[in-house]
Amino acid sequence: MKELRPLALTMGEPAGIGGEIALKAWLERDTKHVPPFYLIHDPKHLEALKDRLGWPVPLKPIATPEQAIDVFSSTLPVLVHPLLRQPIPGSPQEENAESVIGAINLAVDHVQNGSADAIVTNPIHKKVLIDAGFHHVGHTDYLAELAGNGTRAVMMLACPGLRVVPVCVHMSLRESIEALNIDKIIDTTRATVFALKSDFGIKKPHIALTGVNPHAGEDGAMGCEEIDIIRPAIEQMKKEGLSVRGPEPADTLFHERARSGYDAAICMYHDQALIPIKTLDFHGAVNITLGLPFVRTSPDHGTAFEISGTGVANADSLIGALKAAGAMARRRRGDNLH
Amino acid sequence: MKELRPLALTMGEPAGIGGEIALKAWLERDTKHVPPFYLIHDPKHLEALKDRLGWPVPLKPIATPEQAIDVFSSTLPVLVHPLLRQPIPGSPQEENAESVIGAINLAVDHVQNGSADAIVTNPIHKKVLIDAGFHHVGHTDYLAELAGNGTRAVMMLACPGLRVVPVCVHMSLRESIEALNIDKIIDTTRATVFALKSDFGIKKPHIALTGVNPHAGEDGAMGCEEIDIIRPAIEQMKKEGLSVRGPEPADTLFHERARSGYDAAICMYHDQALIPIKTLDFHGAVNITLGLPFVRTSPDHGTAFEISGTGVANADSLIGALKAAGAMARRRRGDNLH
Repeated sequence: MKELRPLALTMGEPAGIGGEIALKAWLERDTKHVPPFYLIHDPKHLEALKDRLGWPVPLKPIATPEQAIDVFSSTLPVLVHPLLRQPIPGSPQEENAESVIGAINLAVDHVQNGSADAIVTNPIHKKVLIDAGFHHVGHTDYLAELAGNGTRAVMMLACPGLRVVPVCVHMSLRESIEALNIDKIIDTTRATVFALKSDFGIKKPHIALTGVNPHAGEDGAMGCEEIDIIRPAIEQMKKEGLSVRGPEPADTLFHERARSGYDAAICMYHDQALIPIKTLDFHGAVNITLGLPFVRTSPDHGTAFEISGTGVANADSLIGALKAAGAMARRRRGDNLH
Repeated sequence: MKELRPLALTMGEPAGIGGEIALKAWLERDTKHVPPFYLIHDPKHLEALKDRLGWPVPLKPIATPEQAIDVFSSTLPVLVHPLLRQPIPGSPQEENAESVIGAINLAVDHVQNGSADAIVTNPIHKKVLIDAGFHHVGHTDYLAELAGNGTRAVMMLACPGLRVVPVCVHMSLRESIEALNIDKIIDTTRATVFALKSDFGIKKPHIALTGVNPHAGEDGAMGCEEIDIIRPAIEQMKKEGLSVRGPEPADTLFHERARSGYDAAICMYHDQALIPIKTLDFHGAVNITLGLPFVRTSPDHGTAFEISGTGVANADSLIGALKAAGAMARRRRGDNLH
């Protein structure tokens, strides 16, 4: 094992559940084998939050990531990053937008200068950031820009036994069908295969690709995207030596036995990927960004304003995101796991 | 309990797995509480099939459905319906198409004249029937025609704990988005509510409707079908007093806790309905046709030519279809169940 570095966890929208699930993840650090992390947040807010919830989480304000490892077993390290306004659960304030974005910037600095091992991001509330002048579709898009020229980020969702990658995201279903093309499918699949090797330790990844139409179009009887776009993409990738198959009918690809036949399913649009994984593991699924020069994961849920501040939020997805980030970063550094 | 009537089970494509799953369902009649049924098929073929598989299924050729009830406990009643050619597993023959269709016609006659309680159909192979002059999109379409003027059949898929109904079927995804309209959503939902009351014994059915776009469009940020079509349909149905809600993001509607919040989910297109149910219960999901003047169910799989004749086919979906048909027919006749 090489030098141990902590994970950087961003505050996310401070009016959301990010703070309380971070406290919960720290409380479960031993029982759930959560790797050491530090939270980039305002300690004043966290003190008030944990006192209100009555949770025994001693906080340790720190100034640099290096201080996190030594204290993590007994305190939650908080990299001090003040907010302009103290958060009101459920009510995001534009005045805090700069701090929310600043926490992401800090995490990227840390992972790029080697003081953090990977980035885990708490959910943000896009509208309040956009109102404050943030011009990105979301986290992933922003991180790709911070990562530098030409980075093409790809979203993977993962839970035990299933990894899915949508080709088209952040657009309507109609636009997804229009936007589908051979290059996009190949780029997405290549990024997935690359990540499965480097970050997941899978030597020869097997990939299944879905069709877009019912029964994958039944040989053109119900739609032509399989014949015109998906099959040619698969044929080209087979020539490159990739282990790819499809287009498979999406409805028969996600039952237990089917899932054991591939390392990742490349799905053509958002719901085709998200429906099966959230049906199977609603609380535990993790969002992983492939294609960045650093490891980044996040919980697969939003700010959950409706329950924010009550302490009932489920931390499983954040815990899964922290564990996945730790394991991926170690693999990328070349450590053998087990 | 009123007079007991048997279920009519059609042969389906005789080169497929219909025969062997019917034999299996009879073998499991006691352990799985399969209601009495008769198989409309060629006894000669079934004799050869069960001998080849070595399965202890005594066959009883019968001439009318009335003979089935008394013999069912000790023999499998086979309503004699000869084939022109003895089937070759995996290789459908056009010469048998007339018998395949004839078996469906017979079953409809029986259920309409009151000698059978409901129809359960084994899977057909559309191509060979179409080549032989059959001009229907499928079973459901054909049964609606046989049922008479103006019948609008609606497909429901059901497994323990989940019922889904797609609004648009038998068309490409692109066409499904185009075909979606307020009337179609309302017609489908009304047919579902009616059936849940009459055939499933649910007094006040609760219905959830999905959106069509990711996150149900996020208030128009990713697609407008929710605002233009689905919401107005829901508003109109609420005015009629139906318990409907949505449009719900499809990816968050099918995990365990979410499923307990409605009696049926109305989905906008094929895969949105089929992905969750086949992910959860690949072998046991049952296809139920709503809106017909008689009860009809079928297993939710195809002819499975690749394993036909080997005896490995899973009969759970057919058994589920027989049990669902029996229970629905009794409810429709007004019997109290339990």
